[in-house]
Amino acid sequence: MDAASRLIPHHDGSPLHVSTLAPALGETVRVRVRIPHAWGQADIVRARSNPDHEPAWTDAVLLGADGGWDWWEAEVVVANPRHGYRFMIRRDDGRVFWLNQAGLHEIETLDAEDFALVAHPAPPAWMYDAVMYQVFPDRFARSSEADTHPTPEWAIPASWDDPVDVLAPGRSQQLYGGDLPGVIEKLDHLVDLGVNLLYLTPVFPAASNHRYDASSFLTVDPLLGGDDAYVRLIEEAHARGIRVIGDLTSNHSGDRHEWFLSAYGTPAAPAEEFYYFTDEGNTEYISWLGYPTLPKFNWASEKLRERFISGPDSVVAMWLKPPFNADGWRIDVANMTGRLGDVDLNAEVRQLLRETMIAINPDTLLLGESTNDAVSDLQGDGWHGAMTYPSFTRPLWAWLSDPQTTAYRNAEGDEVTEPWFFGQPIGGIPRYTAAQFVDSVTRFAAGVPWRVRLGTMQPLDTHDTARFATHAGEGTIPVAVGLSMTLPGLPVVYAGDEFGAVGVDGEASRTPMPWGTEGEPAVAERIALYRDLVHLRRAHPALAGGGLRWVHVDEDAVLFVREAAEESILVLAARGDVEITVPADALAGAEQAQALYGAAAVDAASGVVTISARGPVFAVWALPGVRMP
Amino acid sequence: MDAASRLIPHHDGSPLHVSTLAPALGETVRVRVRIPHAWGQADIVRARSNPDHEPAWTDAVLLGADGGWDWWEAEVVVANPRHGYRFMIRRDDGRVFWLNQAGLHEIETLDAEDFALVAHPAPPAWMYDAVMYQVFPDRFARSSEADTHPTPEWAIPASWDDPVDVLAPGRSQQLYGGDLPGVIEKLDHLVDLGVNLLYLTPVFPAASNHRYDASSFLTVDPLLGGDDAYVRLIEEAHARGIRVIGDLTSNHSGDRHEWFLSAYGTPAAPAEEFYYFTDEGNTEYISWLGYPTLPKFNWASEKLRERFISGPDSVVAMWLKPPFNADGWRIDVANMTGRLGDVDLNAEVRQLLRETMIAINPDTLLLGESTNDAVSDLQGDGWHGAMTYPSFTRPLWAWLSDPQTTAYRNAEGDEVTEPWFFGQPIGGIPRYTAAQFVDSVTRFAAGVPWRVRLGTMQPLDTHDTARFATHAGEGTIPVAVGLSMTLPGLPVVYAGDEFGAVGVDGEASRTPMPWGTEGEPAVAERIALYRDLVHLRRAHPALAGGGLRWVHVDEDAVLFVREAAEESILVLAARGDVEITVPADALAGAEQAQALYGAAAVDAASGVVTISARGPVFAVWALPGVRMP
Repeated sequence: MDAASRLIPHHDGSPLHVSTLAPALGETVRVRVRIPHAWGQADIVRARSNPDHEPAWTDAVLLGADGGWDWWEAEVVVANPRHGYRFMIRRDDGRVFWLNQAGLHEIETLDAEDFALVAHPAPPAWMYDAVMYQVFPDRFARSSEADTHPTPEWAIPASWDDPVDVLAPGRSQQLYGGDLPGVIEKLDHLVDLGVNLLYLTPVFPAASNHRYDASSFLTVDPLLGGDDAYVRLIEEAHARGIRVIGDLTSNHSGDRHEWFLSAYGTPAAPAEEFYYFTDEGNTEYISWLGYPTLPKFNWASEKLRERFISGPDSVVAMWLKPPFNADGWRIDVANMTGRLGDVDLNAEVRQLLRETMIAINPDTLLLGESTNDAVSDLQGDGWHGAMTYPSFTRPLWAWLSDPQTTAYRNAEGDEVTEPWFFGQPIGGIPRYTAAQFVDSVTRFAAGVPWRVRLGTMQPLDTHDTARFATHAGEGTIPVAVGLSMTLPGLPVVYAGDEFGAVGVDGEASRTPMPWGTEGEPAVAERIALYRDLVHLRRAHPALAGGGLRWVHVDEDAVLFVREAAEESILVLAARGDVEITVPADALAGAEQAQALYGAAAVDAASGVVTISARGPVFAVWALPGVRMP
Repeated sequence: MDAASRLIPHHDGSPLHVSTLAPALGETVRVRVRIPHAWGQADIVRARSNPDHEPAWTDAVLLGADGGWDWWEAEVVVANPRHGYRFMIRRDDGRVFWLNQAGLHEIETLDAEDFALVAHPAPPAWMYDAVMYQVFPDRFARSSEADTHPTPEWAIPASWDDPVDVLAPGRSQQLYGGDLPGVIEKLDHLVDLGVNLLYLTPVFPAASNHRYDASSFLTVDPLLGGDDAYVRLIEEAHARGIRVIGDLTSNHSGDRHEWFLSAYGTPAAPAEEFYYFTDEGNTEYISWLGYPTLPKFNWASEKLRERFISGPDSVVAMWLKPPFNADGWRIDVANMTGRLGDVDLNAEVRQLLRETMIAINPDTLLLGESTNDAVSDLQGDGWHGAMTYPSFTRPLWAWLSDPQTTAYRNAEGDEVTEPWFFGQPIGGIPRYTAAQFVDSVTRFAAGVPWRVRLGTMQPLDTHDTARFATHAGEGTIPVAVGLSMTLPGLPVVYAGDEFGAVGVDGEASRTPMPWGTEGEPAVAERIALYRDLVHLRRAHPALAGGGLRWVHVDEDAVLFVREAAEESILVLAARGDVEITVPADALAGAEQAQALYGAAAVDAASGVVTISARGPVFAVWALPGVRMP
């Protein structure tokens, strides 16, 4: 794709282009589209909405021009909780174009890829500024208290410097003994990095190191320090400006959970209806992907809904209230929750979850795990965003990896020679160009309202994946971390990445934190990289809520700008050497560019803007804010 | 797009590729993908399903090769009522490809564009073989009985050869007096054309010529001959092998409907809950696009559901039962039904409709009007197909029109100089290339399960649109009619098109049928065109249920094949002159091609296939059926 083709009409969901991110139903919202003179002159611009699934049109008026761009504005009345709209632009040569979240088109476009306003209750304002830090409690830090905890019968104790055992039974039973007091002791590390949202994988008692097989949702595992430690952790985090969210399985409980135990083998037990027992004796049941330790919840049960979500002392509610005051939830296996065969209660469950949270504390966050295409569930009615991989993480790997082929043993004990790639049996990590990276990001964002996109996590890796660094192409780690901090979405640091941890799959990547190595040059450099890029993100609001406009995309490089009225941020990410020339109108104010990060040159002297650098490179500049006429 | 790029891996929902179109939930279905040697050799092929929204993979096995194509087969267990699947193909050069309904991709694809099996109850088998003929009763034929009907107070009587009055009040009140006995008298015309499904716009009593403002759903308008005439029409049609479906407004009734009258101005009337009254006195209410004559139904009312749909004597039920025995429904404004603001009961209503129909007579058809993007509602849970325009009609117009710019007066009385284009204010009819036509068809079909696509109407025009002939490019009418008969979907002839009728918009196109002109050369030729192409469609089952594989697409021409085991049909459609060369493997058996229609030459002598013709051209050949190894 040549650079010129990116100098095209532009709209996104950011405040430059939309008068409010949180409209009420029935509210009139002003939406603005910018049309570069270099592309052409429009003679008609209209917004096409789709209230109650029937098109409605409003005329846009020309507000004026600035810096080689015409600005048009239309009014849109928000008729539905997810209100889609697109622009129709007739150019003065008679050609008709459609602009939607997938781009600019000469053929008619899909409703599903409209821009979209959301009239459901807004996410907490702090979501937009959040940088998440993910902790897997057993592997993060072990306090001195931890020595006082007896080893439970299921556990295989490990010393902090033992290698991770990826094979069953060690896989789920190897216990390093990290605890919440340990997390508290390390909170200043989070402050140093600049992150402000701590996401802990489950803290409930269970029979595994990952604790997704909760035996109760009503108490914190004593091995982690119990309820008191959790209260104290959240207090200490809040005192440092760090919010804390928990992790809850709405798809299943553990098979040691009191509800399950009370119903297992006991027909007509009150909690029988919470699960899908398939025999008369209540000994057979549906479970997550067939794992018997994880019996699946049946959300048709009103009683389950009350106990888990909506009742005054529900699981969802209690942890958001004093004394705990957690700031929200990441919901595990959100994608499968309430879905089984011809039953699909997913929307009811996610909406009930959010309603409950709003009643207790609207300033809380709700993220849903949906590791593949999450678009259908990300329309703003429940999840504020997703933990998902195809919209950022996988295309990033596919572009920036240099796959290593060292054989390893997977969790099943099989020898594997192809790199793990998110459980997809496609023969390893695919190879994308930079343009394919952008096409992928666009494809999976096109169906998601802007505001939900901003809440969607963009990790390089998580506790369920290999570590990106394992396969990172030479010099690409700053590019990857940089993109996670600068593209629209919720940046995530998985604890250990900042120490340079590697891991060939989701089991192997659950490495204990190598505290004490911070002074080693390679580690210090990596920590500094994260610190610098997290601070960059947090210091420049345009990186949180600014628009996204791709300026140049080729096989090897992407150049984009996050735009806002106060300040815009220009970002260059490339694997190879860069010599990009774009029209001056594509980057107004480039002559005033202030380098914020990376080693690259901007030359805006000669009527065009030239960006040059040795690759791989990640570079960032501040530009003047975008002026509206 | 060059021809070679179309010689790529192929799958569609047809019997060559899918072992059943009507699987039960839990059934194992075999899905087959064909990979041309010219494209490359696969070393891994897998099917990727998404049961309960979590990916599941099955390996495909190589069945063998035939005619330069490898055939691979995988098993898929149908886990959900709409069960999406795609193929992952790793070529032996290591590159990974995804195949879905949008095509072949090197980047990951959207769930929404997966191929899809549907485990909801199957449509009637006759749907696949249907060719629809649409009649607007007031304008079709006037029997001698019609003279005996008194003119109702609202009507403005017209003689059969009066011009259509497009301005209010004539627009809706001009009454030509066509009736059902008139339709009966002309049934042999339908037999002659070869159509086998008659769709009548509403026959209920109303205060307009279109009768969408029904005053009752329980009787046939006496002006049309009443219930007896309807019984007789259906009997006579059935005797000729023609099925009949009616037209029902599930979005609204007329303001003279007994339900509405009983509640209007009468708070707490039993039927109050059927509508959305917005004031205490029941004098203000929500109506279709604000037209007060069309008060919108409130489907939250259980009583309305019973009376209209699910009760033993419901509206939906009674017309499907003796003595009427209608064969189904086309539902008006299906897209808006049950949708208002933050309420969306659409899925409940369409599912209840279909459940009711199945209980009475499963061999009935249910089509929903959704004139724009219908994808979200076309997942097989209710509508068997849609009356919709972006997936065929609009792109066809955009490719094959030569827009006329004669000014006309629209229904509002305004002078208009731009051709009407489906109510879209985009400055007239856009201009598409043949490739854009194909891209549009693909885009709007990609989200629809194959079986639902086969039930989706592909008219050139309807009672709500201008007539295609009004703007048809020179020589393109055979191309347009031919495509409607040969692309996957339900062909539609809007009565009058076969006489060469024109009309600048949906009002002007409601012309009385010019009976008696059949002998005029131009009319006779046009009728013969329709007769030939309808008969072609009906004589070759591959045109009903065969697969669809694009063989060549360029700016001016499309070449595709509808494939089946018994016989395949090759179709050429072009505006300009054609000289297309494709590899022999793209068209196995081309040397045995038998010309069925049109003037074009196939030369398969020299290891490639060359197709040449003077354009515009529509041509069809029979090819040997596809051999599976």
